[in-house]
Amino acid sequence: MSEDRPLANLDDVRALLRELPGPDREAAAAAAAREGQLTKPAGALGRLEELAAWLATWQGRHPPRIERAQTAVFAGNHGVAAQGVSAYPAAVTKQMVANFIAGGAAVNQLCKVADSGLRIYEMDLEKPTEDFSQVPAMDEAGCAGAIAYGMMAVEGGLDVIALGEMGIANTTSAAALCQALYGGTAADWVGRGTGVDDAGLDRKTRVIDAAVAKHRAAMTDPLEVLRHLGGFELAAILGAVLAARMARTPVLLDGYTCTAAGAVLHALDSQALDHCQVAHVSVEPGHRRLLERLGKQPLLDFGMRLGEASGAVLAIPLLKAACACHGDMATFAEASVSGRA
Amino acid sequence: MSEDRPLANLDDVRALLRELPGPDREAAAAAAAREGQLTKPAGALGRLEELAAWLATWQGRHPPRIERAQTAVFAGNHGVAAQGVSAYPAAVTKQMVANFIAGGAAVNQLCKVADSGLRIYEMDLEKPTEDFSQVPAMDEAGCAGAIAYGMMAVEGGLDVIALGEMGIANTTSAAALCQALYGGTAADWVGRGTGVDDAGLDRKTRVIDAAVAKHRAAMTDPLEVLRHLGGFELAAILGAVLAARMARTPVLLDGYTCTAAGAVLHALDSQALDHCQVAHVSVEPGHRRLLERLGKQPLLDFGMRLGEASGAVLAIPLLKAACACHGDMATFAEASVSGRA
Repeated sequence: MSEDRPLANLDDVRALLRELPGPDREAAAAAAAREGQLTKPAGALGRLEELAAWLATWQGRHPPRIERAQTAVFAGNHGVAAQGVSAYPAAVTKQMVANFIAGGAAVNQLCKVADSGLRIYEMDLEKPTEDFSQVPAMDEAGCAGAIAYGMMAVEGGLDVIALGEMGIANTTSAAALCQALYGGTAADWVGRGTGVDDAGLDRKTRVIDAAVAKHRAAMTDPLEVLRHLGGFELAAILGAVLAARMARTPVLLDGYTCTAAGAVLHALDSQALDHCQVAHVSVEPGHRRLLERLGKQPLLDFGMRLGEASGAVLAIPLLKAACACHGDMATFAEASVSGRA
Repeated sequence: MSEDRPLANLDDVRALLRELPGPDREAAAAAAAREGQLTKPAGALGRLEELAAWLATWQGRHPPRIERAQTAVFAGNHGVAAQGVSAYPAAVTKQMVANFIAGGAAVNQLCKVADSGLRIYEMDLEKPTEDFSQVPAMDEAGCAGAIAYGMMAVEGGLDVIALGEMGIANTTSAAALCQALYGGTAADWVGRGTGVDDAGLDRKTRVIDAAVAKHRAAMTDPLEVLRHLGGFELAAILGAVLAARMARTPVLLDGYTCTAAGAVLHALDSQALDHCQVAHVSVEPGHRRLLERLGKQPLLDFGMRLGEASGAVLAIPLLKAACACHGDMATFAEASVSGRA
C-alpha cells in the first residue's frame, strides 16, 4: 500500500481516512445465522459470540479464522523524557529492543503461547522526538513518515494484528494526547507509567498541562495534536491501524499509549476503530477513562501496565477460542439435541 | 486416593477436610524472588504475576508450569427439573453428553485451543436425584458416592484441572445451595439459567424458597445442604476440588453451578478453595454475589452462561501465559537492562 500511496504529509492521511472500508454485512449476516444454530442456548457464549461476529465482519469472510497472527511492537524515544517524567532512563528503550530481539521480554513469551509472529520496529532511537514541553514533538514530514512506516507493518494475509509500543516517557505523550483531544486537566489523564514517584508524577502533570496550553492554538485537528504531543511509535501505531483497516485485518490494541494513538483516528472519524478491540484495560487510570470516550469494552482486566503489546498478545487465544466455537461446534440438527421445551 | 480411602459417608468427607495440605511457602518465596528480577517494572504484569505465584504455591514447585491440562465435565440429572424450572427438557443432558463425546460442543473446541485433555463423567442420567422440592435430593450414600466419583477425575501428574458441569435444572440447585449457605431469598440468588421465561423464573424462585424453608432444620452443616439441595454432578465437583488439593493440582472453576459446589467446601473451611481460581463471572446474577462471598476475583468477564467448563477452559491459556512470562523472561542482569533511574 505504501508503494501505491506515499504519505508526504498529513493531508494524505486525511485523504486516506475518507476511503476507509466499512463492515462486511454479508459476512456478519452469515455469522449471525450460524450462531443461532449451534448447540447452546442463544447468547450463552456471550463475548465469544460477539468476537466471532466481529472477526467475520472485519475479516470480510465467514467463517472467521485466526491462523496467522502477527504482533508488531513499535519503539521510539521521546525528547520530553529530559523533563524527568519517567522512572527509567531513556536508554532503556534501546536496551528493551535488544531484549525483544534476543527473545527475553514478556512479549516474546506471550507470542509463543499465542503462536503469534513478532516483529519489532525500531524508530531511529538515536533521534528522539523533540521535547514537546518546548516545541512540537514532530515536524509534518517526520509525523507522516512515521505513519507510513507503521502502515508497512501490516503484511498481506494476516488474520489479526496485535499492536504495541516501547518508549520511555510515552505515557506522558499518551496523557497529553488525551487531554488535548478530550479536555480536562492533566491530572485527569496522568498516571505513574513505569512507576514514577510522587515528585515525578507532579513533574509529569505540570509538564503536560503546560504543553497542552502552549500548543493549543496550533493544534487545529487531531493529526496536529499527534504531531505536537505524540511520538514516532504512536504515529506508527496510527498508521498500522489505518493499514489494517484497508487490508481487512482486525486489530488488537494494547494499553494506554497504544489506545491513545488510536484515539487520534477516532477523533477524526468515530468509526475508524470499529475493526479494533482493546485487548485489556491498563492500571493507568487514564486508560479506563479513554475507553469510555471510545465506547470500547476491554477483553481483559488484568492489572497490567507493561506495554510492548503484552496485553494485546494475551488476548489472541480468546479470538482463537471464538473462531473455534463458531466454526466447529455442531448445530442442533447435526447433534440431534432438542431445542427449548 | 479413592482406593486408600473409600468414602462411605459424609463424615469421611469431613475427616478429609481436616487434612488439606496448605500452601507451599518455599515455592511461593522462590516465585517472588524471581519475579523481582525480570525485565519489567515491578508489578507491571499484574494478574499474570499473581497467577504465576499462585501456581507455584499450589503446584508446590518452582517454576510453575502448565504442560498437562485436563478438563473434567460432570453430567447429572435433577428431579427438580419436573417442576418446570428450565427452558430445556431434561433429555438434553444426555443429548449434550453425546455431543461432548462426538466432539461437537463448545468445550470440545475450547479444549483444542487450550491443548487440554477432556473427560466426560456421566452420572447415571437415567436415575436423576430426587426432586428436592419434595424430599432431599440425595441420600447420604449417594452423595458420598458422587463425591468419591468426582475425586477419581483427578489423575496424577496434572498441572491444572478445569472443572465444569452439564445438567438441566442445575442452576436451580446452585441458587438453592447459595440461599441455604448465605441466606437471603431465592430472588437474591436466582437467574434465567439456559433462558427460562418470566413465568419459569417465577416458578424457579418459588420452588427454591419453599425447598430451602422445607429442609432448613435438617440442613445441619454445608454437606447436608449439598445432600438436600445439590445434585450428583455438584457433589462430584466438590470431590474433584478436594482431590485436586490433595494432589497439588490447581483448579479452574467454571460458572455459577460449579462455583456453588465449591462454596460448600468453602463454608466448611474458608481456605478450602485457596488452590482454585474462578475462571470467569457468569451472567447469572447469583454468580457475582457468590464470588463476593468467596473473596474470588474472576479471571474473565465474558458474559458467558453455558457451563460445560467453557469459561474454565477459556482461561487455561492465561495460566500458560503466566508460566511462560515467569519462567522464560530474561532478568535485568541477563539482558543488561538498566533499572530505575
